[in-house]
Amino acid sequence: MAACIFCRIIKGEIPSFKLFESDKTFAFLDIGPLSKGHALVIPKHHGAKLTDIPDDSLTELLPVLKKIANASGAVDYNVLQNNGRIAHQEVDHVHFHLIPKPNESEGLGIVWNSQQPDMDKLKILAEEIKSKI
Amino acid sequence: MAACIFCRIIKGEIPSFKLFESDKTFAFLDIGPLSKGHALVIPKHHGAKLTDIPDDSLTELLPVLKKIANASGAVDYNVLQNNGRIAHQEVDHVHFHLIPKPNESEGLGIVWNSQQPDMDKLKILAEEIKSKI
Repeated sequence: MAACIFCRIIKGEIPSFKLFESDKTFAFLDIGPLSKGHALVIPKHHGAKLTDIPDDSLTELLPVLKKIANASGAVDYNVLQNNGRIAHQEVDHVHFHLIPKPNESEGLGIVWNSQQPDMDKLKILAEEIKSKI
Repeated sequence: MAACIFCRIIKGEIPSFKLFESDKTFAFLDIGPLSKGHALVIPKHHGAKLTDIPDDSLTELLPVLKKIANASGAVDYNVLQNNGRIAHQEVDHVHFHLIPKPNESEGLGIVWNSQQPDMDKLKILAEEIKSKI
């Protein structure tokens, strides 16, 4: 994808603060961080959403993210991957945010409005999803 | 971990709306969902934070999450994994939330306060982290 900013970062056409690179994975610092150490871990395989990435480009992402979390020294942190504009995705190449949470004001802010669903409906939904896996 | 609620769900001691199970991975519906189809994907290996989980229990998590995202039919969605109470973690067994984002009001709410860091400091930070990987 010639126009994709993350594909261009992987190729070195756009500079980045690289943290890690392997055959399938690339990691670098976010230059608009929510907190110190905010990093991005991405598959080299281009795809907008998680469901667009082949399994063999997904398997290494979390082990690499773990390496970086350990190296960053973060104690508390969020891992976030957004799919779709309404879900806060800004670059259409799958990326996992590793966001240290050093205090209340820095890092990821989360708004959590839980619903209280009908348990019978949840049971039906689980069967529906299972039947499609 | 006899007292861990997710370990007890894995063992079947506490009922759940199970979606998927393999040797290393378990997935079920969240009973306090942020949106319809909100699911949890967890390693069977007990550990509180991502950095506590061995790599061979991490590799399958995203492929399983992808399967469930596809089966759920969600178009836009967030993947979130919280580490530490301040980072919104409520159960101390690693869990990945798959949260469909059907509209502005349902699903995950995100507060994104970017910082504008000094590029020289980012460069030094990247070198520091790299040296510890």
